[in-house]
Amino acid sequence: MSIESMIGTMAKDARTASRGLRGLSRGQKDDALFKMAEKLLKRREIITAENQRDLSAARDAGLSPAMLDRLTLNEAVIGAMADGLREVASLPDPVGAYPVMWKRPNGLQVGKVRIPLGVIGFIFESRPNVTVDAAALCLKAGNAVILKGGSEAIHSNIALGELLAEALNEAGIPQKAVQVIPTTERAAVNALISLDDDIDVIIPRGGEGLIRFVTEHSRVPVLKHYKGVCHVYVDQSASLNMAKEICFNAKVQRPGVCNALETLLVHEDAAPGFLPEMAKEYESAGVEIRGCPKTIDLVPGAVAATESDWPAEFLDLILAVKVVGSMDEALDHIETHGSQHTEAIITNDYNRSQRFLAQVDSSVVMVNASTRFNDGNQLGLGAEIGINTSKLHAFGPMGLEELTTTKFVVYGQGQIRD
Amino acid sequence: MSIESMIGTMAKDARTASRGLRGLSRGQKDDALFKMAEKLLKRREIITAENQRDLSAARDAGLSPAMLDRLTLNEAVIGAMADGLREVASLPDPVGAYPVMWKRPNGLQVGKVRIPLGVIGFIFESRPNVTVDAAALCLKAGNAVILKGGSEAIHSNIALGELLAEALNEAGIPQKAVQVIPTTERAAVNALISLDDDIDVIIPRGGEGLIRFVTEHSRVPVLKHYKGVCHVYVDQSASLNMAKEICFNAKVQRPGVCNALETLLVHEDAAPGFLPEMAKEYESAGVEIRGCPKTIDLVPGAVAATESDWPAEFLDLILAVKVVGSMDEALDHIETHGSQHTEAIITNDYNRSQRFLAQVDSSVVMVNASTRFNDGNQLGLGAEIGINTSKLHAFGPMGLEELTTTKFVVYGQGQIRD
Repeated sequence: MSIESMIGTMAKDARTASRGLRGLSRGQKDDALFKMAEKLLKRREIITAENQRDLSAARDAGLSPAMLDRLTLNEAVIGAMADGLREVASLPDPVGAYPVMWKRPNGLQVGKVRIPLGVIGFIFESRPNVTVDAAALCLKAGNAVILKGGSEAIHSNIALGELLAEALNEAGIPQKAVQVIPTTERAAVNALISLDDDIDVIIPRGGEGLIRFVTEHSRVPVLKHYKGVCHVYVDQSASLNMAKEICFNAKVQRPGVCNALETLLVHEDAAPGFLPEMAKEYESAGVEIRGCPKTIDLVPGAVAATESDWPAEFLDLILAVKVVGSMDEALDHIETHGSQHTEAIITNDYNRSQRFLAQVDSSVVMVNASTRFNDGNQLGLGAEIGINTSKLHAFGPMGLEELTTTKFVVYGQGQIRD
Repeated sequence: MSIESMIGTMAKDARTASRGLRGLSRGQKDDALFKMAEKLLKRREIITAENQRDLSAARDAGLSPAMLDRLTLNEAVIGAMADGLREVASLPDPVGAYPVMWKRPNGLQVGKVRIPLGVIGFIFESRPNVTVDAAALCLKAGNAVILKGGSEAIHSNIALGELLAEALNEAGIPQKAVQVIPTTERAAVNALISLDDDIDVIIPRGGEGLIRFVTEHSRVPVLKHYKGVCHVYVDQSASLNMAKEICFNAKVQRPGVCNALETLLVHEDAAPGFLPEMAKEYESAGVEIRGCPKTIDLVPGAVAATESDWPAEFLDLILAVKVVGSMDEALDHIETHGSQHTEAIITNDYNRSQRFLAQVDSSVVMVNASTRFNDGNQLGLGAEIGINTSKLHAFGPMGLEELTTTKFVVYGQGQIRD
């Protein structure tokens, strides 16, 4: 069977399964999630053995230690995956809620009810634990999902997919609700993103190259972000101690992720009292500072920033720093170089806090908090499948509710249109 | 200047204008809408003169009387356009509302605030009054819009565009917030749908061919429906008088529109008491019935339906009719042949009404009401720019709220992530 026809069959099976998922009760879905958690723990030896096959191939291929670490499924990671499944079970069921209902002058009652999206194609790289997280979120939101993981994780993903399907089956849920694509061939991605009849949305997660490829070639709508070039703007009214704590946390706590700080903007009145001390803290943590001329005057250890540093997502202990003459200059900088992911202002000024919140066109805009909080779990969504920086459907982190849509329901008593 | 660079400049101007629209108050936007209405009435002679140029070219090109009618801007149509502008002014401003806000254990206050989408590309055919309606809705929702109307309406649209820009200017709003593409060349559409940096969403409205072309080639997300193959299912428990009134209204009241009835499904227990009488009413209105074998037994005037009739959007006084043995058969038929637009059940049975509402995966699902009510205005959204049958962002009619999205705002007091 060709890759195209295999993926076509998987998509049709997913579409059929999604019909069966529409009417499931929360109890049925949670039961499947608990069964998945049990099976994961019971079968951890098989899983880790399959994962070893992936790891030894990855070592032979010369993958970096960081990549090998992300690929590894050990007891601790499997335990965390099982915990994750139980956490998703503990979240409320988004399906079936009526966010609004109103009555028309002619007596029609018009409401919106939350329903699953249908079939989701999820394309991701390396970490096999994401397979289980994504399957859990899609299932709880009533969606069928087709998972295309990174080729390095193929044996781990196939083993996890089998276990998930078994759990679904035992819970009386169509087992094609969760399907892992059992091939490493790139043609599978091309096939998946062409099936706009049977797949409702594609969510790609990984490097910018993968995401650009999917976005440019997909006939199915795509929810994604390319990169997170996150800014903190330290206003002239900021508490400098708070600014230091937040800027340090946002850059250093986990520099390799999309909500880490990449460019620090400092008002010129705050810069002399803030930047030299801040730079010392950054220096002690090994952060390289690439600054504008005014920054370099204040921070002798800084190197000169080039134009390419302003829109850069370093994902590393590197920080671009610019001194600005006004908040307007900061807003212009963010508008020009930002990625609409996460921006924060540090300020004690009421009016500027409000103007920053209103004017910055990013999925999450913060006052006096670390950009690292742009994460479904940290913001209170329970869990997330990704972050969307296109404006459609769900701008920002996507949790269970964002994996649903609403349809209109109309209760009539025989009304006809004049 | 090439078409591509002209459209590129328009898109960049729209993006710049959209920044200025973010912070506008409702009063400013409504002021512009009232000024547009005044100008429209004051300048009706110029508008109708430009419209005459379009009409005479259309007559020379041999357009049908129905097409000429849709293209005509006379006193009555211009008056209705002005009323439409004032109606949009009377609707609440969707921008700035906080649908939800909550507090996290660490004290962070997390909310969602409604914001404009940004820049909308609206591609539509023939009727020039749509130019004004769409501009009004986009403006009120805080979006910049680029309008590409049908080539037959080019002079009318350019004249309307000038007037709208003048009104914006007088109201102190960036006049590039509303731009009409001043060319009939198809290349303008191709250019528009390639600009994913400066345009946030494309909304095409018109024939299926146009919409398929846009969907297949656009790099910008598209909100659209291909067609409306709407079903009414007459259950065995239906009040047959109510069923007759609704089925007649849904098919006959305005057969050329997307929410008109195209396929009638009748439970076999209801068919003998319902179909012969219903068919007489249809006959008197000139409706051609294309039926399944059981329908033909009951309705002597019916012709045999072919497979291609079931997924057909007739947009005419033609109706496909099928007798089904159960509601499950009706649900299967809708799942197979429907367009996820509008479906209704006529029933007095509580359980079947609920099951129909839950199981039918369409943007609007109704009990005991005419499919003709799937329309933003009729459902209480005030007005609509179109109906979306893709599941993303807004499933169903799209009014002002559907022309916005939400971003997260976070109010902190110095929180950092552990």
